[in-house]
Amino acid sequence: MNIKQEIENIAKGALAASRVLANLPSATKDGVLKDMAAVLLSNKADILKANRKDIAASRNKGKAFIDRLTLNEARIKQMADVLLDLVKLKDPVGELIRGWDTSNGLRIHKVRSAIGVVAIIYESRPNVTADCVGLCLKSGNSVILRGGSESLNSNLAIYNALNSVIQKYALPCAAINLIKTREHKAVDVLLKLNNYIDLLIPRGGEELIKKVVRSSSIPVIKHYKGICHVYVDEWADLNMAEKICFNAKVQRPGVCNAMESMLVHRDVAIRFLPGMFKKFREAGVEIRGCALTRKIAKWAKRATEKDYRTEYLDLILSVKVVEDLEEAIAHINNYGSHHSDSIVTDNYDQALKFLRQVDSACVYQNASTRFSDGNQFGMGAEIGISTDKLHARGPMALEELTTYKYMVFGSGQVRQ
Amino acid sequence: MNIKQEIENIAKGALAASRVLANLPSATKDGVLKDMAAVLLSNKADILKANRKDIAASRNKGKAFIDRLTLNEARIKQMADVLLDLVKLKDPVGELIRGWDTSNGLRIHKVRSAIGVVAIIYESRPNVTADCVGLCLKSGNSVILRGGSESLNSNLAIYNALNSVIQKYALPCAAINLIKTREHKAVDVLLKLNNYIDLLIPRGGEELIKKVVRSSSIPVIKHYKGICHVYVDEWADLNMAEKICFNAKVQRPGVCNAMESMLVHRDVAIRFLPGMFKKFREAGVEIRGCALTRKIAKWAKRATEKDYRTEYLDLILSVKVVEDLEEAIAHINNYGSHHSDSIVTDNYDQALKFLRQVDSACVYQNASTRFSDGNQFGMGAEIGISTDKLHARGPMALEELTTYKYMVFGSGQVRQ
Repeated sequence: MNIKQEIENIAKGALAASRVLANLPSATKDGVLKDMAAVLLSNKADILKANRKDIAASRNKGKAFIDRLTLNEARIKQMADVLLDLVKLKDPVGELIRGWDTSNGLRIHKVRSAIGVVAIIYESRPNVTADCVGLCLKSGNSVILRGGSESLNSNLAIYNALNSVIQKYALPCAAINLIKTREHKAVDVLLKLNNYIDLLIPRGGEELIKKVVRSSSIPVIKHYKGICHVYVDEWADLNMAEKICFNAKVQRPGVCNAMESMLVHRDVAIRFLPGMFKKFREAGVEIRGCALTRKIAKWAKRATEKDYRTEYLDLILSVKVVEDLEEAIAHINNYGSHHSDSIVTDNYDQALKFLRQVDSACVYQNASTRFSDGNQFGMGAEIGISTDKLHARGPMALEELTTYKYMVFGSGQVRQ
Repeated sequence: MNIKQEIENIAKGALAASRVLANLPSATKDGVLKDMAAVLLSNKADILKANRKDIAASRNKGKAFIDRLTLNEARIKQMADVLLDLVKLKDPVGELIRGWDTSNGLRIHKVRSAIGVVAIIYESRPNVTADCVGLCLKSGNSVILRGGSESLNSNLAIYNALNSVIQKYALPCAAINLIKTREHKAVDVLLKLNNYIDLLIPRGGEELIKKVVRSSSIPVIKHYKGICHVYVDEWADLNMAEKICFNAKVQRPGVCNAMESMLVHRDVAIRFLPGMFKKFREAGVEIRGCALTRKIAKWAKRATEKDYRTEYLDLILSVKVVEDLEEAIAHINNYGSHHSDSIVTDNYDQALKFLRQVDSACVYQNASTRFSDGNQFGMGAEIGISTDKLHARGPMALEELTTYKYMVFGSGQVRQ
């Protein structure tokens, strides 16, 4: 069998399985999730052994890569805990979103339902395998996973453990699917299977996402870059601003909800920036500033147009002193990536204007952008953070993995 | 200026305008809608004159086409009434969808907000111009309209009338946009402007939609074909079934929510079909049936595989006698287009199973599929009926033209 047929068969099976999963009772799904958590722990030795194989083959890939790839007892425990957390969350399928009567006596129910088949293309972190299986199962969808080829052994070990539970419960074996070939062609084939797959979620670098968007005939929800801002307003509590900006930039610079650009109102720049920059420099943050910033910090590099559009994912920060709130909002809407942006202010009107007018998935007053995360938002796990506006925006979890249908109850009504 | 620049300038203007529209007070939007309704009526003569020009140029296009293209006093009144209906509906923008506190004291508000820039590609009916302007304005979006070239004079007259109100209220003139060239290249350019346009809605024939899906870099919500079924169950009230099937097929066969395929349980086929077929034949409906159907109606044509996948939009009906409910559900999920399907039954369990397991936007018990319509559902106008599962499913109106954002209120929280 060639790859095209192989992938197509997986997708066909996933579609058939999705019909069963869509109407599975919550108790069954929760039973499966609990058993999956248990089986991850009892298969710990096999999973760690497979993971060591992947690590050995990736030795020359750099420290950050190896860190993302590496599993240990604690991380396997975390994977199991995510599945147990999902058990506690409400089943989204079947929820009555709204119900009403029409003038001719029809009763209309807008009911949450599973999407069908969800495909996820991701990179090196093996925990994504278990998280996505759990989220898709609880939301009644079948799932097709295509992980990074460097983590294939780890993913296979995790998948085999989880799939044994699917078998134990006599669910369709194509309920959860892992693409087992390393061949790149597998992805090209997958992207064209819009007859079987309802939703495609690419998680990874900009290049991967651009490629998927360009070639996919399946609807895609993008998890694009995060060019996040904190704007320090003239009415800011400057101590609070310093803590928030420091946290947003330094606590974990390599993730999408970290701050990449700091905007400061001109009236507080001279009081705020010197102390803030001292802290940043102690933490090894490189500053790239506008002309006004560089009047205060002569040592700082000059920020170019390109800097303001760059997701550094590193200890680098672009800084701009702005005239007023309006300039800050316009700058964020123009240069940002509509992900997460925060204003530090004690002025009610300024805050409301910022929250309304900044066109981003998550807008904050007096908090770090680092909270843009499904778990922090109380959604359990997350399948990613959408930078799109359609279907789902911001952290995506169970509810975002559903659609709805209209159930209409009549008594013989016909249209006039 | 060449077409590419022209269309790109329109889109850039629409994006800038969308920032203003997104936060426009409800009272202003409703004032604009009322004045737009008035201006359609007061510009009646100009609009009808332009429409006569379009009709004259399309004389050889066939009766159905001319009917769709033609405006008259009553139809202009209807267009104005749609705008006045929108005034009465709740402004979707700003609605608090959900709000909660997190354990660290953040307050999260999930708030409905405008999408941004919506582009609509449609065919000959000029009333779509006014409907789409009204829906997009009320939902806080700017709109780019590309109507069929045969209705360009009518669309221009309607657009000019509506745009005079935009000017009167000193709103950005790019809030509503009509592409004024007949050149096909304009659409090709439009489809690639994903940097400015958030959503593309094609309304029209299968070919148009396929082309748009193939070429667009902008997210598309498809208004695809409707292969709608009525399933007459063994527990059906056969009198009711006859009325519902007749209505679903005959009342307006050329629309997407009309029945194209009728399924009948084998235990009632012999009692139901002869009388039903008599009525259909009196109405000029051609029957194409399965082998069992043709045992009862020897005169009927044989239905092929292709028939069961065909949207006739005409007085033709495919018929299949099925073993049981399960076969009916499997047939609909396999051959249908996930649009609108109905079961006629008085059996509670059978109905619930059908409503749950048929994977369509609108599923009915004991009612005609012809009710799948924004207006019939109580949504005012509709911008179309989505056959997609992502973002919006079924009739699309104001709420479906919005997204949401998370507004997060903190008091200095930083991530641990």
